[in-house]
Amino acid sequence: MDIGFIGLGAMGSAMAANLVRAGHRVTVWNRSPEKAQALVKAGATLAKTPAEAAQAGLVASMLSDDPAVEGVTHGDTGVLAGLPAGGLHVSMSTISVALAERLAADHAKQGRRYLSAPVFGRPAAAQAAKLFVVAAGDGQDIARAQPLLEAVGQRTFTVGETPSAANVVKLCGNFMILSAIEAMAQSMTLASKAGVEKTVLLEVLTGTVFGAPIYQIYGEILAEERYRPAGFGAPLGLKDMRLVGAAAEQLRTPMPFLGVIRDHLLQALAEEGEDIDWSAVGLAISRNAGK
Amino acid sequence: MDIGFIGLGAMGSAMAANLVRAGHRVTVWNRSPEKAQALVKAGATLAKTPAEAAQAGLVASMLSDDPAVEGVTHGDTGVLAGLPAGGLHVSMSTISVALAERLAADHAKQGRRYLSAPVFGRPAAAQAAKLFVVAAGDGQDIARAQPLLEAVGQRTFTVGETPSAANVVKLCGNFMILSAIEAMAQSMTLASKAGVEKTVLLEVLTGTVFGAPIYQIYGEILAEERYRPAGFGAPLGLKDMRLVGAAAEQLRTPMPFLGVIRDHLLQALAEEGEDIDWSAVGLAISRNAGK
Amino acid sequence: MDIGFIGLGAMGSAMAANLVRAGHRVTVWNRSPEKAQALVKAGATLAKTPAEAAQAGLVASMLSDDPAVEGVTHGDTGVLAGLPAGGLHVSMSTISVALAERLAADHAKQGRRYLSAPVFGRPAAAQAAKLFVVAAGDGQDIARAQPLLEAVGQRTFTVGETPSAANVVKLCGNFMILSAIEAMAQSMTLASKAGVEKTVLLEVLTGTVFGAPIYQIYGEILAEERYRPAGFGAPLGLKDMRLVGAAAEQLRTPMPFLGVIRDHLLQALAEEGEDIDWSAVGLAISRNAGK
Amino acid sequence: MDIGFIGLGAMGSAMAANLVRAGHRVTVWNRSPEKAQALVKAGATLAKTPAEAAQAGLVASMLSDDPAVEGVTHGDTGVLAGLPAGGLHVSMSTISVALAERLAADHAKQGRRYLSAPVFGRPAAAQAAKLFVVAAGDGQDIARAQPLLEAVGQRTFTVGETPSAANVVKLCGNFMILSAIEAMAQSMTLASKAGVEKTVLLEVLTGTVFGAPIYQIYGEILAEERYRPAGFGAPLGLKDMRLVGAAAEQLRTPMPFLGVIRDHLLQALAEEGEDIDWSAVGLAISRNAGK
Repeated sequence: MDIGFIGLGAMGSAMAANLVRAGHRVTVWNRSPEKAQALVKAGATLAKTPAEAAQAGLVASMLSDDPAVEGVTHGDTGVLAGLPAGGLHVSMSTISVALAERLAADHAKQGRRYLSAPVFGRPAAAQAAKLFVVAAGDGQDIARAQPLLEAVGQRTFTVGETPSAANVVKLCGNFMILSAIEAMAQSMTLASKAGVEKTVLLEVLTGTVFGAPIYQIYGEILAEERYRPAGFGAPLGLKDMRLVGAAAEQLRTPMPFLGVIRDHLLQALAEEGEDIDWSAVGLAISRNAGK
Repeated sequence: MDIGFIGLGAMGSAMAANLVRAGHRVTVWNRSPEKAQALVKAGATLAKTPAEAAQAGLVASMLSDDPAVEGVTHGDTGVLAGLPAGGLHVSMSTISVALAERLAADHAKQGRRYLSAPVFGRPAAAQAAKLFVVAAGDGQDIARAQPLLEAVGQRTFTVGETPSAANVVKLCGNFMILSAIEAMAQSMTLASKAGVEKTVLLEVLTGTVFGAPIYQIYGEILAEERYRPAGFGAPLGLKDMRLVGAAAEQLRTPMPFLGVIRDHLLQALAEEGEDIDWSAVGLAISRNAGK
Repeated sequence: MDIGFIGLGAMGSAMAANLVRAGHRVTVWNRSPEKAQALVKAGATLAKTPAEAAQAGLVASMLSDDPAVEGVTHGDTGVLAGLPAGGLHVSMSTISVALAERLAADHAKQGRRYLSAPVFGRPAAAQAAKLFVVAAGDGQDIARAQPLLEAVGQRTFTVGETPSAANVVKLCGNFMILSAIEAMAQSMTLASKAGVEKTVLLEVLTGTVFGAPIYQIYGEILAEERYRPAGFGAPLGLKDMRLVGAAAEQLRTPMPFLGVIRDHLLQALAEEGEDIDWSAVGLAISRNAGK
Repeated sequence: MDIGFIGLGAMGSAMAANLVRAGHRVTVWNRSPEKAQALVKAGATLAKTPAEAAQAGLVASMLSDDPAVEGVTHGDTGVLAGLPAGGLHVSMSTISVALAERLAADHAKQGRRYLSAPVFGRPAAAQAAKLFVVAAGDGQDIARAQPLLEAVGQRTFTVGETPSAANVVKLCGNFMILSAIEAMAQSMTLASKAGVEKTVLLEVLTGTVFGAPIYQIYGEILAEERYRPAGFGAPLGLKDMRLVGAAAEQLRTPMPFLGVIRDHLLQALAEEGEDIDWSAVGLAISRNAGK
């Protein structure tokens, strides 16, 4: 299958590699073309513009934020300029609900198809093709994108027919991860001031009703205070929480945990600098208790 | 083994029944003696006072709050009056850290032994002897109580040598359960206003990194808005959060999620009355978004 | 007029002195009798028990917390034991709503009268007889206490016929003071990170719509970071916020600013120790922004 | 003096009228020119574009949000296109710190001068020339704008040499107003559930340490629950709080009251619609207590 792929950061390059590995004919584009070298060696073709990558008729984009996605979509050399009539753009970045709505409208207006299909998982999961994909859009478009989604993920969840629904779900997921980290860090801080080892509390939690990967993974990070190097940086976490806040504002939905989370991210960034992991909300929490 | 058991509410009566079933000679006491009928039929002996139940030398108490536990412990007919020298009191109620500290000191002063061993699990788990026990205290005391703890639970976690450590862990657990319900309810409200079914969001969460029982159980309650009849009443949840707050105050530990949780419990109680489940924080959350 | 006065801390001794100065025959009691020396020199009589002080028929109490007030009221040597039938107890301490309700009931049961009349103002205001008194209770009792209230304060506000209403108002006042300090400290921190001097922001605020004493007084403290010596200690502020929380819980009223305030008090206490002023919530706020 | 004035909403038209009244030669521009009729009758000249209004060499803009200000500043017919070399743009709108920084840079790059001079006050104050002006920028520019500022306000505060400092101060002011409303509404709700009339609490507050206009004005609105018609709409308040949040994010400053305020604005908007006053945070607060 001919597939274009735009955005070769830590996530995107691993995903594109899996597309190549699955036997697809992949045309890639990245702002800094040197990041494409390994992929080209593996068999991918390097496009000079996003438009060129989009000529495949099915193009995925995986970029870091709203402006980057807007940048590759519009303009003379953008996806919309290159995508053939009826072509499909699978937008896999974590972007705002408002941008997803705008992109869906822009593509429709020009007779192009648009899907939102953001993913859960860190770079290691991307490399192992173990991402979880959350897709929303027209059923036929999702069917058409299936070979692409299957090559990068272990499972696809379809959450609605409006593309932006997938972005809401993705943002909710990140909000819930930070909420879980917060609750655990607040509990660990209290418990440790009462003389209970953090790892002991964690063992009780995961051994009873909190036996989910998220508690295991982040519980260990919190117990070991392992906030560097960042697996997922606090500035990216803050960006995602800003998008949650923007969706909450647009949809008139109070989300009281959000203010707490944002403030702890800001504190961690203010005290520690921009290279800290998003789980460093736990650092802010223990510091504020004088630990 | 001779075991006294004090407090025959929904939890206590199920636990005492399991002690009888396990072959122990059980002497029970309850403020309203009629609740003991079934147990007596099953082979338990009815004591006239907590002191009488404590004469077994090993006595467990399972009551609803601090005043109830203090009430059965002190005074002429209390546990301390009946417990023989060297006798052991296993306090399984969810009580304050401060009371656990006081009880430990009071028992020590009179040459009696004291363990905190609160439990996780609802009445159904108590009936099935599937509770999780969190124990703290002297290692020999825990060993001595083991037959009792094994008869009521599926697993015992030892979290420290200071009895009150177990109460901190228990309170943290309830705080974390309410935090998880809050995070899920806030996410579901946002998602549903964006057109995503609550059950769809739940499927994504539990199918990815939130695959723990707590999300499954409460996610369904939230999706179905099934807040009555109460499995665990909001007033009890509020009481527990008050105890978390008291521990946080005593230990000088900020816990910013706590204020949010308490306020939603208060809102649910103000709007719905005292018979609502503690998961009705979710009702407050969706109402505040105009749903 | 014969007046008993119980509690000779910084506030109480200044208030009792003003009663003597106003020409009343004052009988004082304090747990540590040496604190009464100056008052006795000025003409007051020293009582051996609260009961003895209450024999005057009109007795005021000004103590630091709930247990202290309960301690002087009940028991063989307490106010209720000494107060003649029909005698009036004017309770001026900042106590819980629940205790005020209990005291009112206890006095009524024994045919004694009870008023709540807590005060606003620091020790300097007490010395200058410039306190603000907030009174609630039966109109005739308030009239009867008027000479006492006038001798210690510049103005009396009558807020209802249920004594505990005055305690609610007093607690709301302290909650509002801390809320104002919080809002100002958060704004000053943001502004100073943007290069605006704290004193410049304060000048704009007090020069426009925030021209109230509370902003002037605490604005200067915040700008100068003058948190020691404590004018009103953080532990006392925390105690008052606990009473606000208890009232909010009893009355089923969410108060979302309260959690924020309590957490900042706890952080200041955790980081700085128990001798810090309650306005040190401002210290927590600026620290969390890395200042 | 020749002055251009851009933006003739409720605030802007009143301010422009005061400029005419003060004897200045005023050229006005508004997107809907019919709003200029009364001003033209009073002696103002109507410009066809912002650029034309800017030809006066000194031009003020008073618009509702960031996009509107950007819209009149840039482009072929914008302020920057019309302002002569060395001309001064006095930006009086409540805009983001980031936009103020960008505008300052854009003007400097083209050899034009830029001041931020946002105002405090509602339309009635604008009509009475009783606004408070908060100005920041180069001292000579502020001196040059003085006749303009004096004609619209009762007092000008100079808060720094970086224009955006004035925008931070303005945003802090609105944050503090909402914080004061919140604290009062939370207190009034608690007090009223305890049987204290809201007006009685208000009398105590304003009669003691909260004797500032802001408490008087909004205290009455809260007591009377007079949330319509909106004096300052909740959507505008929400926009301002979004700008506070953006500044807090940019400056890495936690502001925990902000989350509470935003959530109550969102609740009021969700439950009541877009035409409600920003003080309706008080409505959300009392509703959540079941009142």
